[in-house]
Amino acid sequence: MHIGLFDSGVGGLTVLKELKKHIPKAHYSYLGDTARLPYGNKAPETLKKYTAENIHFLETLGVDCVVIACHSASSVSLNISQTHRGTPVYNVITPSCHQAIFESKNKKIGVIATKATTISQVYTSFINTLDKNAQVFSQACPLLVPLVEEGLIDDEITTLALKRYLLPLINQGIDSLILACTHYPILLKPIQEICGPNIHLVNPATSVAQNIILSDDYDQNLEKIQVYLTDHAPHFIDHAQSLLGPHIDFEILYPTP
Amino acid sequence: MHIGLFDSGVGGLTVLKELKKHIPKAHYSYLGDTARLPYGNKAPETLKKYTAENIHFLETLGVDCVVIACHSASSVSLNISQTHRGTPVYNVITPSCHQAIFESKNKKIGVIATKATTISQVYTSFINTLDKNAQVFSQACPLLVPLVEEGLIDDEITTLALKRYLLPLINQGIDSLILACTHYPILLKPIQEICGPNIHLVNPATSVAQNIILSDDYDQNLEKIQVYLTDHAPHFIDHAQSLLGPHIDFEILYPTP
Repeated sequence: MHIGLFDSGVGGLTVLKELKKHIPKAHYSYLGDTARLPYGNKAPETLKKYTAENIHFLETLGVDCVVIACHSASSVSLNISQTHRGTPVYNVITPSCHQAIFESKNKKIGVIATKATTISQVYTSFINTLDKNAQVFSQACPLLVPLVEEGLIDDEITTLALKRYLLPLINQGIDSLILACTHYPILLKPIQEICGPNIHLVNPATSVAQNIILSDDYDQNLEKIQVYLTDHAPHFIDHAQSLLGPHIDFEILYPTP
Repeated sequence: MHIGLFDSGVGGLTVLKELKKHIPKAHYSYLGDTARLPYGNKAPETLKKYTAENIHFLETLGVDCVVIACHSASSVSLNISQTHRGTPVYNVITPSCHQAIFESKNKKIGVIATKATTISQVYTSFINTLDKNAQVFSQACPLLVPLVEEGLIDDEITTLALKRYLLPLINQGIDSLILACTHYPILLKPIQEICGPNIHLVNPATSVAQNIILSDDYDQNLEKIQVYLTDHAPHFIDHAQSLLGPHIDFEILYPTP
């Protein structure tokens, strides 16, 4: 089975890592659209265009399905379940909202995300489409991406920032929390420590991994990761290798797909 | 006198604010190249092209000089003192290095900057071009831009981050410190508190303001600020108005100049 993923940069690599944990025998092709990052500040029409182009590129590689491993690009693709050529398309938002509602007993659901995702209210409105009685408490956490990118995972600065962001949600009585940014699952442990054992954390990458329909040839062990970048990004390679191990093929694509 | 400035986004507005303090009677035209931000991760050749295009655009407005209000774009423009049409071009790096050397008694100079500026070593090499015996201690401070953008100026998270970044420089015995990112002068007060009175802080915006040659017509009071953006950016306008006051003309340019 050949699974394609894309994101603007390194963020989606955490989705790839989680998919690989659940579907280890697949061949993965990851497109990092580094020439056009960041996606968070782009207009919806622009993001739709980039998403279509990225999916088309992955289709030319012969993928069996595409995972949109980016919350911003997912937010403009909630209604796309397959391309016009029939390739299944999975986004990270839909399955995580389903799972949060499923896990929640009191239907008080927290969502932590970037500022752009929070302002878009995409999680709030999709959760309320699924369950109009659910209460959604959103919190933008703009410091978390830079903290993760600095490697400050177990650090008092991060703990202070996390408490600042999470305590208002905890005080609202949430019993499930969606980590609605690809960087946040790296902070799963400190987030769980602050939230305590009674708040269920939803990692969208896990939710999407559980939704992917395996192809008939899945038993063929194709285990391989290939990464394609649309612009030079030396730190990308370091980051990918530290997250996924040193045995990754890289192919630098240029210009944009 | 008509002064043109450009940056990729809001950062250069702190330079505009400082220029206005020193040269209040001028007419300012600020170009925020929001369609192509951020500049920090762009290749030097790409930045040179953007810089030339932005200067050309400002020239079509009839400016008397151009200030490159961005450290990344300045770093590829150190040797440009005027355009081929004769317009004077000022960058934020050259005058701040001169000033740091002038202020320093022990020639131990600290530089705090973004990761991209720090990796480029542009400050270190330019300071050593001016004085080969000066010792330069650079520190990348990737958390400071998001902290400033969150408005966390007088906040324990910012104090912790600043101490983490500044103590190694203080321990090296620096007696002057260049705030080599347009966002950092907003943190001048907490930085000075941590550094103490014996470390001289250099704000590159002040250095460049002191270098601008006033035009003959400066006595004509043209006091006006116009802001041009290459892409929609609602937060830009909020940010500009909170920094510079509500009486700013905005003109949205689209597409890129």
